[in-house]
Formats: sequence, structure tokens, C-alpha cells
Amino acid sequence: MDHSTFRDFSKAMADYIAEYLENIRDRRVLPSVQPGYLRPLIPNAAPETAEQWTDVMKDIERVIMPGVTHWHSPRFHAYYPTANSYPAIVADMLSDAIACIGFTWIASPACTELEDVMLDWLGKLLGLPKEFLACSGGKGGGVIQGSASEATLVALLGAKSKIMTEEKEKRSYADDYEIVKKLVAYTSGELALTILMEEQAHSSVQRAGLLGGVQFRMVPVDDKHRMQGAALKAAIKKDREAGLIPFYVVATLGTTSSCAFDNLAEIGPVCQEEKVWLHVDAAYAGSAFICPEYRYLMEGVEYADSFNFNPHKWLLVTFDCSAMWLKDPSWIVNAFNVDPLYLKHDLQGSVPDYRHWQIPLGRRFRSLKIWFVLRLYGAENLRAHIRKHISLAHEFEQMVVADSRFELAADVIMALVCFRLKGSNEDNELLLKMINGNGRIHLVPSKIGTTYFLRMAVCSRYTESQDIQESWKEVQAMADRLQAEKAKGN
Amino acid sequence: MDHSTFRDFSKAMADYIAEYLENIRDRRVLPSVQPGYLRPLIPNAAPETAEQWTDVMKDIERVIMPGVTHWHSPRFHAYYPTANSYPAIVADMLSDAIACIGFTWIASPACTELEDVMLDWLGKLLGLPKEFLACSGGKGGGVIQGSASEATLVALLGAKSKIMTEEKEKRSYADDYEIVKKLVAYTSGELALTILMEEQAHSSVQRAGLLGGVQFRMVPVDDKHRMQGAALKAAIKKDREAGLIPFYVVATLGTTSSCAFDNLAEIGPVCQEEKVWLHVDAAYAGSAFICPEYRYLMEGVEYADSFNFNPHKWLLVTFDCSAMWLKDPSWIVNAFNVDPLYLKHDLQGSVPDYRHWQIPLGRRFRSLKIWFVLRLYGAENLRAHIRKHISLAHEFEQMVVADSRFELAADVIMALVCFRLKGSNEDNELLLKMINGNGRIHLVPSKIGTTYFLRMAVCSRYTESQDIQESWKEVQAMADRLQAEKAKGN
Repeated sequence: MDHSTFRDFSKAMADYIAEYLENIRDRRVLPSVQPGYLRPLIPNAAPETAEQWTDVMKDIERVIMPGVTHWHSPRFHAYYPTANSYPAIVADMLSDAIACIGFTWIASPACTELEDVMLDWLGKLLGLPKEFLACSGGKGGGVIQGSASEATLVALLGAKSKIMTEEKEKRSYADDYEIVKKLVAYTSGELALTILMEEQAHSSVQRAGLLGGVQFRMVPVDDKHRMQGAALKAAIKKDREAGLIPFYVVATLGTTSSCAFDNLAEIGPVCQEEKVWLHVDAAYAGSAFICPEYRYLMEGVEYADSFNFNPHKWLLVTFDCSAMWLKDPSWIVNAFNVDPLYLKHDLQGSVPDYRHWQIPLGRRFRSLKIWFVLRLYGAENLRAHIRKHISLAHEFEQMVVADSRFELAADVIMALVCFRLKGSNEDNELLLKMINGNGRIHLVPSKIGTTYFLRMAVCSRYTESQDIQESWKEVQAMADRLQAEKAKGN
Repeated sequence: MDHSTFRDFSKAMADYIAEYLENIRDRRVLPSVQPGYLRPLIPNAAPETAEQWTDVMKDIERVIMPGVTHWHSPRFHAYYPTANSYPAIVADMLSDAIACIGFTWIASPACTELEDVMLDWLGKLLGLPKEFLACSGGKGGGVIQGSASEATLVALLGAKSKIMTEEKEKRSYADDYEIVKKLVAYTSGELALTILMEEQAHSSVQRAGLLGGVQFRMVPVDDKHRMQGAALKAAIKKDREAGLIPFYVVATLGTTSSCAFDNLAEIGPVCQEEKVWLHVDAAYAGSAFICPEYRYLMEGVEYADSFNFNPHKWLLVTFDCSAMWLKDPSWIVNAFNVDPLYLKHDLQGSVPDYRHWQIPLGRRFRSLKIWFVLRLYGAENLRAHIRKHISLAHEFEQMVVADSRFELAADVIMALVCFRLKGSNEDNELLLKMINGNGRIHLVPSKIGTTYFLRMAVCSRYTESQDIQESWKEVQAMADRLQAEKAKGN
């Protein structure tokens, strides 16, 4: 494809995208296709000769769109938001065109340096302690990871590398496995024996344990599904008495299940006393800390060794962009440092070589997206975006409360409303099936303990008060239908 | 930013990109900035109010470009190529606009289904055995990973989960750690005690061992730096005799250091006899298998359990897009399956839920890039692209051979030429320093055993015969200068 064809093609795509997003409200949120719908729509092998871009453009509506779940529809309320913004799309075009792989400083200095500074910009916006910021001149600094799962895993490996070093200094072990088998990590959750799907923290925390090869302990939570200091303290004490080695705590600020906040102000001092690595996972809710009025929820963050949130969720920077800060990256850098000659360069040491801060070797120029979004929105508009979503959630909350058939399943703190029909889990499962089957709005369920509920997350930057009202009307209409069918059945 | 501003902004960016790539030959390949150059060029915090996009556009040349290493300059010859193509850039725009997170089928059916079919298209183009293809109706299938490092790690975890299951069936162990500490993985390399930077396989293989918590054994290589069947067999035998459990072999087709190919035709049967998981890492060279004349290099691939190559290296699909196939994904799916309620859906089981095939939970709609690139180039143009690069490498090879001061350090098989000044490593280190210091071309070094050499990879899709000749002239000019300086010094 030559330059002038690219100009035509990319401009046609820009028009298509603007058209798609401008009119996304008109599309059914959830597609009605069945598994396997796509394969028959396209050839079974790549073409031998080049096709025209205009033919590819035509296939977007024919092949792709029928199978798209429209995450940016104002009535998509499933999971959590994922970002979509014009500045980020354009930044990604530039990133794709420069297409450098920023594994070392010399491999593209701008890629490393803009990331270093953008993580400072973000950290300042959130009000993170200066120990996390590169500009403070200490050891701390930030890095972009692909996802919160990776950040949790990277922090776990740092904590593991630290405890292994410390234990070996303390006493002699036959081999590393003698230490590894005693290591215990902690996260919020039901009792230790609770099955995985009922745990409170995001499922990626479990996965990190699996990958890192250490045991994970679910710390019992309080009635608001939050880990408290005393419960953590007790769990650690019990494990130490059993000869185990507590080394890593993941505190979650805004769980996926119900957006519960672990009590960081209590957990922090416990971790400090017990000398265990504290990682704070604020994947979704972290974006809200750009608004000073929500920072009380991260009180105690000064005790954390690592902190992570996803601008690609709620801060309008497209996936993937998971921001992570470390007070002392050397534990991770040393654990990951496998340095072949072809990656060495003369200026090592004076700037971060980010390949040692992450699991993959390769990395894109992702900080461009942060730069474009922060400049083209400005902090005040980003704060307005967060506040609007939270306010829309409270609007929905009030409608739930006003309908006596329904109840809330958790406090509404951010832009997530957990609610349910008073009554059986089965009724709520049926209700959800009817709502999603209709496809006008999209919700997913969750469960805390034995209580099944529906989650209404405000996700799209196009969501307005009227959308929230229509979404609620749809819930009510399906509840009416459910009750009518049950009445008929009886 | 409203829709019409986006149209203006993205079109201006398309023009900038076309201009940048059209004239990339005129830019100095390697920047001359010093570490820390960028921070003083921009404010130390995000702006409070929104800026104009035109101001952001202006800052690209002022802030970013001075620090960019131009990977797509026709005279960039470092590392390996990373892809850059117009169809992929436009596909990414669409992916960013749809901005779905495809962790389950229902989260966006098109995202999962196009990936499933595109991995079949790619697998067919490469001539992979049908057991790897979803369309064959067996268990096999493909998935897009972020990088070859991740693919190696994912395969290791699958192999680990398989061997743990098998060992527990065979005899009883006190705990999992009793098994884990006996596990041994193998890859090509110098003797087991060789320091890490001298190993042949890509450094990501080491890292996977670190993350997966198992020992990695370097299998001694032959004089062409290839793992042979007998050496692997001997290493496995020795470990079994010591009571260890061999479970995973990574065969590399096209090492980063010198593009050596392990002898898969021999290694395959050894792995089958020894019942160890065989993972083939063809990150760079795999793209060449779209040309039938290079498939002899993957003879024995039918014995592999998993296979990986990076379309984002040499097949014009922008980063990140690492294609991985598994004959039996269930080992990985079962190892990774941590399934909270909010990710469950009614249609589970009939189609892949790719979150179980990878380390992160989130994933972008990356198959669009493969679809656009394969259709808009067509197989014949992609083959022409590969053949041209290899032919340019041979052109460079001939010039090296014709200059009696130089020698080749490895066979030229793909588009990489490993060469050196006859004489000391120190002279070659000086030569490289002068070449990169001049910044007109960019090379990185490597080392095999104690021999230091320079690597000239053909990377850019803009590279022509004339560029290769100029790159060689630059090497010669620096060699002349080195000799003159040495003569003066004496």
C-alpha cells in the first residue's frame, strides 16, 4: 500500500469511526449471533493476491459489527469501563507509525523518557506519595504494564526476590524450594477454603499466585467485603506459628465484584510491622483519586511498596495502559535482569531500561496515549468525567431504592451499583437472563458469599442521565415480565 | 474532543505519518540525545485545562522525534525487524475505536472468532500440521499473545501442569514442591554453566524459567550453534539418572544472536520418546515459512506441542501480535482457569474463552491487524517481502566476503548477516562504537562463545539494494578510520 492510498484509507477509517461512535446509541448493545457465526462469512484461507481497501471497509459492517459487543454504548453496564477516546486513538496511530520497541533506553530514548515523565504526571494527579515518583530523585518510579494482572505478578516476583534474599541471609536452606514452599501471600476474600469464584479480589490475583508458584491466603472480610487490619494480622500470626513465611499482601481498592475497598489505613501499618511487601491494586477505582474528595479511600498508601491502577479503564487512555509505581524497583530489576549482549548499551544505568520492569521483552510506545489524553482533556475535564459517572451511579441507586421490589447489594462508592430483586438467587438469575437476552442493555452478575446480584457499571463516556433512566426502565420492564410469567406459572 | 475535531486531528496525523515514513531515509537513524533530554522540554505536571490538538502536533517534532531511534529507516539494522505497515495502522484505529476487551466470547464474539479464523489462515500460510489448526476439528488451535516471551512462559506453564498431573498419578509426593524442584527444562545454549549472556536462545527463555520457578538446562550446541538430538538426549539421560524430571524443551528456529536453527528433525523424536513437551520458538524466522523453500528449516514441527512466531516482527503486522498454536490447549486452559462469576456466560465451552490461554486477563481486538494485512498485501506480496529481505542480506554477505579484512561469524540463512573484522574482539567493539556514534546506520553486537561480532539485520520494508550498499560503505569507512587511528597510535 503506497502513501497516498494510506491517506485515503485512514481518512475513510476516521470517518467510519466517528460515524460509529456518534451513532453507537442506536446499536443493540449485545449481539445476537451464535458461536461460530463468523467463520462462514469469510474465505477459509488468506487471499493469494492483494484486495482493495474499499472491500475491506465494506466487510466491517458485514462480518465484524454483527458480532461486536458495544462496550462504548451508553447502555453497556457490564464489567468495568474500558477506555475509548479520540486523543488516545490518534496517539496510537503515531505509536504504530514510529513502531519502536522500547526495551532499552537506546532502542528509542523518547519511548523510555516520555513514559518516565508521564508516570510522574499521573502520580501527581492522583496525589501519590513522592517516594513513588521519579522526579523526587529517590529510587522510586513508574512503568506502564499491559494489565493489572501483570502488575500484580510483577510485584509478587519483586516481593519473592526480596524475601528469598532476606531469608538466605537469616539462615541456611537446602535449596530455594525449601523457602518457596513456605511463602504465603494474602488478599481479601472469604475464608481460606472458599472456592475461587467467591473471592473478593479480582481473579487475576489468584492467577499471579499460580504463576508465581506460591500459596495465596484469602483473608476473611468484614460485612462490607473489606479486608481489615486485625483479620490480616491474625492470618499472618497463624501462618508464622505454623512455620510459614508471610511475604506479600495485595490490598484491593475497588474490587471487581462489588467495588469494595480494603482498609488500607489499617493494612498498611500491619504490613510495615510484619515486614511484608504491600501491593495496592486500584485497577478501576484508582482513576477516581484524581479527584481529591475520593483520596480518603487510599489513606495508608504511603505504606505501599507498589501501587497500580489502569488508566485504560476509567481515565480515557485506550487499552493497554496499566500504570504501576514502585518505591524500590531494584528488587524487580534484579529478579528480571537477564541481559544478553545485543541488548547492552553504553548508557545503561542512568535511565530505566524498562525491559527489567516487566514480563515481556518487547514494549510499544504507550506513553504517547497518556500524553495526548492528559493534554487534550486537561485535568479538570478528566475530573468532570469521573464525577459525572459517579453521579450517574447515584442516580441509578436512587431509582433502585425507590422501587420496593429491589435492594442494594453493596454501598455505591464509585460508578458501580450492585443490586438485586429481593428474594431468591434464581429470580435474579432469570432477571439477568431476560435483560441480556433482550440485548438493549448489558449487565453481568456477581456473588458475595451466597448472595447473587446484578452489577450496573457506568462505562461509556457517552452515558447521560437519560440513558441511565432508560437502563433502569429496561430493568423494571424485565422485572415486570418476570413477575407476570411467575404469576402465570403458578 | 468532539467528532469533527477528531476527524481533523486524525487526518492531520495520517498526513504526518505518511510524511514521516516517506522521508524516513533522511533522518539520522540513531538519535544523539543524552539520557534525561526530554524532561526539561515539557512541563512537570499535566495541564489543568485542555490544550489544542495543533499544539500537541507541533510538539512531536520538538519533543519526541529528537529522541526516536528510527526502526523503520532503511539503514536500521539492529536487533530484528519490528513490523510497520499501513494496513496494520488502520486496523489498529478500528480496534481502538471498537475498544472491546475480548476476555470471553460474549464480551465480543467477533474478537474471539476472527482471532480463531485468522490463526487458521496464518497456520495454513506457514504450512503448519493440521493438528494445530482449529478448522481441522481436533483439539488444536491458535491464539495471539503479546510477545514470544509470553508464549514461552504460557507453554512452560502448560507443560508444568501436564507433568504435575502425570507425576501425581505415578507416585505420591509430600507436596507439589517435591515435584517442582525436580523439574528440568531445556534449551539450546553453551554448557550448562555458561553465563547467561552467552546462551544462544533468546533471553526471554531464561526469564520464563525464572517466572515459572523451574530449572533451565542449556544443552551444548554444535559448531553452528544448533541444538542437536544427541546432545539433548544425553542431557535428559543424565538428569534422569540424577533423579530429576525432564519436562519441557524449547527449540529455537532462528536465534536472536546469530539466527541459528536448532535441529528440530532430531529434537522432535527425542522429545516424543522422552515424553517431554516440545515448544518451538520461531519468533523471527517463522514468517519465512510462508515461502515453501524455507520450510525445510522446520522439519520435525509435527512433533511439537506448541509453536510460536511473531507476525509483529517480519510479517508486517504491528506490535503486539505473537501467534501461538497448541495441539492440546486444555493443559493451559486448566492451569489458568480461575473463573469468577462475572466472567461466566451461557455459551462457555463451544468456543474458546481466550482469557484461559494467556497470562493477562484483558486483550485487545488484535486479529483485525492480521486480517487487514493478509488481505491488503495478499500472500504473494508477503512472500516477496520475505524473499527480498533475504536476498538483500546475501548481497551484504557478498560484500563482506569480498573485503579481505572481514569474515562471516555465522551462516546467512535468513535476513541477518553476522560478521566481524578479522582480529580481536576489541577492534570489533571499537568499530561498532564508531558506526553507532556516527548514527548513519545502526547495528548491535552479539557474542558466541568468546567471539564478538556485529549483526546486520535487514529490517525496514523500505530497504533497497542501494541502502544495503551504503550501509556497507559506512562499515568500510569506519573500518578505514579505525585502521588509520590504530596506525597513528602505533
